[in-house]
Amino acid sequence: MTRTAGRDGHRPGPFHLNAFLMSTGHHEASWRLPESSPEHTSTNIAYLQRLARTAEEGLLDSVFFADGPGLRSDVGRRPAGSLDPLIVLTALAAVTERIGLIATASTTYNSPYNLARRFASIDIVSGGRAGWNVVTTAGPDIARNFGLDDQPAHAVRYERAAEFLDVAAKLWDSWDDDAVLGDKEQGVWADAAKIHAARHVGEHFSVAGALTTPRTPQARPLIVQAGSSEDGKGLAARYAEAVFTAHQTLDDARAFYADLKARTVAVGRDADGIKILPGLVPVLGSTEAEALAAERELDELIVPEYARRQLAATLRVDPDDLPLDRQLPADLPDEDEIEGAKSRYTLIVELARRERLTVRELIGRLGGGRGHRTLAGTPEQVADALQDWYDAEAADGFNIMPAVLPRGLEEFTAHVVPILQARGLFRTAYEGTTLREHYGLERPASRYSSSGVSVEAVELATAGVGA
Amino acid sequence: MTRTAGRDGHRPGPFHLNAFLMSTGHHEASWRLPESSPEHTSTNIAYLQRLARTAEEGLLDSVFFADGPGLRSDVGRRPAGSLDPLIVLTALAAVTERIGLIATASTTYNSPYNLARRFASIDIVSGGRAGWNVVTTAGPDIARNFGLDDQPAHAVRYERAAEFLDVAAKLWDSWDDDAVLGDKEQGVWADAAKIHAARHVGEHFSVAGALTTPRTPQARPLIVQAGSSEDGKGLAARYAEAVFTAHQTLDDARAFYADLKARTVAVGRDADGIKILPGLVPVLGSTEAEALAAERELDELIVPEYARRQLAATLRVDPDDLPLDRQLPADLPDEDEIEGAKSRYTLIVELARRERLTVRELIGRLGGGRGHRTLAGTPEQVADALQDWYDAEAADGFNIMPAVLPRGLEEFTAHVVPILQARGLFRTAYEGTTLREHYGLERPASRYSSSGVSVEAVELATAGVGA
Repeated sequence: MTRTAGRDGHRPGPFHLNAFLMSTGHHEASWRLPESSPEHTSTNIAYLQRLARTAEEGLLDSVFFADGPGLRSDVGRRPAGSLDPLIVLTALAAVTERIGLIATASTTYNSPYNLARRFASIDIVSGGRAGWNVVTTAGPDIARNFGLDDQPAHAVRYERAAEFLDVAAKLWDSWDDDAVLGDKEQGVWADAAKIHAARHVGEHFSVAGALTTPRTPQARPLIVQAGSSEDGKGLAARYAEAVFTAHQTLDDARAFYADLKARTVAVGRDADGIKILPGLVPVLGSTEAEALAAERELDELIVPEYARRQLAATLRVDPDDLPLDRQLPADLPDEDEIEGAKSRYTLIVELARRERLTVRELIGRLGGGRGHRTLAGTPEQVADALQDWYDAEAADGFNIMPAVLPRGLEEFTAHVVPILQARGLFRTAYEGTTLREHYGLERPASRYSSSGVSVEAVELATAGVGA
Repeated sequence: MTRTAGRDGHRPGPFHLNAFLMSTGHHEASWRLPESSPEHTSTNIAYLQRLARTAEEGLLDSVFFADGPGLRSDVGRRPAGSLDPLIVLTALAAVTERIGLIATASTTYNSPYNLARRFASIDIVSGGRAGWNVVTTAGPDIARNFGLDDQPAHAVRYERAAEFLDVAAKLWDSWDDDAVLGDKEQGVWADAAKIHAARHVGEHFSVAGALTTPRTPQARPLIVQAGSSEDGKGLAARYAEAVFTAHQTLDDARAFYADLKARTVAVGRDADGIKILPGLVPVLGSTEAEALAAERELDELIVPEYARRQLAATLRVDPDDLPLDRQLPADLPDEDEIEGAKSRYTLIVELARRERLTVRELIGRLGGGRGHRTLAGTPEQVADALQDWYDAEAADGFNIMPAVLPRGLEEFTAHVVPILQARGLFRTAYEGTTLREHYGLERPASRYSSSGVSVEAVELATAGVGA
């Protein structure tokens, strides 16, 4: 991918944009707006296909879905329910041609053979557009859907995740690119010497055989990571090629960016091999006043009782200990004591302490984007905010989380993207066809080949399908 | 579904037709024919989509894929490799509108929560066209992809399968059809009292929570079963709504049919609630001589060494103990000693003994369809063969396994289907939109509702997508 020179003194582009999709939008009250339809759920595939097409029209690098194998208990609060994320990606692949497709899947509640196979399959079906957001899945409720009484400890979940990724990488290299001979004359379809058994025996997994799929267009999916705990950053430095992260301030984002790039280099990887994308929840208006009014309308639709119960659960306190018009109690647990989503916990507590927010104010801030940076403003202001963080080396791109969908995504692609394009900060056409190409990353070589890798041989066996 | 009267004295139709799809076809040497393309693999989704569209143009009830989470070791023998079957179904759903879509998935190497969720998702995405061929997955090689040294015992695998289906059925009933309120005024999205936690605690599984998906268009996928061992028939009688089975003779097929219907009635189910579909491998020609020549051409392309090694593994003997021009050894193990695919083992041994086949002859017979009935003939002869078995109550329909693909399926739909239609034995248009409707089966009521079930409420939340 060629880089376009930026304005004088500015960091050259282009940067990367991912659209994080979620039912009626990331603001928890978005479903209560007059414009929101009861058909705008994360279980309505025609709706999700519409969103993906909008993102592709805007030339975004990728779309992404969060996921956990369990249903939230607060189904009254906002649209609940989800389809299996790899089935969603497959349905989106059928109606799009270029945009990358990233699904979340758990290393704690899947087996490496099955999950590696599913990601290889979607990479083939999509013609090389698959990404995997690797999560370890916090929470006892989900553990109880899988025969456990409680979640495994945080550190154990991350050890398992690392070994899971090692096994998956072995499986994705099972077939050499030229393994299929198709020799009708001799009656030899494939060369067994060019198909490699995983032969993995480890602490958490034993996986003997080869994968059922040929090596895929991308060789493996783009590996994405989103936890920002110490364990999460360690996993990202070793394995991640893109990172979704949440920061409220430029200073925090810059520090995280510098830290993670340094950790990545420290394990022998290229700093450019990991793209860091902080989340941004834009609330757009044609004037700043209009945007602020839209944000206020949303915040006023929040039902505080749902959010207070969730906050209490996150903070491990009783809801009655969180009066709406008081600040957080002083005696909260340390992050070290948290076995669930550590970095989310710390972000919330630090936000409340730094800005001396009442519980009601904190709920308002979290309701917009669960700890991600929210920005109400004009398209120009949102573009400036993205550029500022990019120029300051706080980001290689952004995880765009529209407060309201589908409108927020339509407005972003129609009004913000053209400004970024005019500034040389975003592509004006897709240059590649795979997700790795969009993010400027190579197709990895196989561990079994010392030489370069031929893609042509793969295309024959796996020819993907677009719209 | 209305039944059309058959010819005088004959059983009224229509019967059911499933197309069992596999790379270049069911004959192991099909890939060596001049007409077979190296692009005709089970990992080429565009090719599989073409096959599914052909089957839909022929108004077939469904298409089906066999599956195991492991790669065969004899990759030289014939096209190997497969995509995740639910990802395949999703990609087929995108380019078809009516045909049912049946995938094989293992109860031994999946967790109920994840797999129930995936089948619910494909049922939603396909608009109610999903079916699940429930298998327990024989063989130590696959066990070793999942951290086991060997497969669990046959009986244990079937106990686990039964409990797996019980858990899955609870999960599929998680949401009442009217669970979603979408009450913007009060700020209540769903009624938590209408979403039910599974609360399952059993011998093999504990699953606490509710599924992430609304109740689906079919409520649950069509349950298909294909093992014909004692354990397999027991499982089918309790749970299956369609059964794929392999019989070489009309007498065997009639006995199996009568036995399974009786077992089904004995557990309190309706005999019409289980549709029995024996496999048939047609080799079509415009004359019988042409068909026989085509079959001979295929058989001559078989490389006997591959098949002899596989036969030796199935029979638990050394390949050297199977000289090609001798009959099977006398001292083979009893079915009771087999922990793998019991009914396939018995079928092969009985076929060889009954017809006094040499190893070479047996390999030829199995090479065409791995123990399924093969018939080389004209379209009229194939239609007669289907009607004879149907009239004799040996079948409610057939699992069509073309020896060569795509041609065998194209010829079957173009030439055999019209004969069956003219005889009133097969539909002339799809009457329903779901797979259950094609097979004449009701949408099951929820265990949580005593009253009837409204489908309309589901459609809002799950609107599926066709071509």
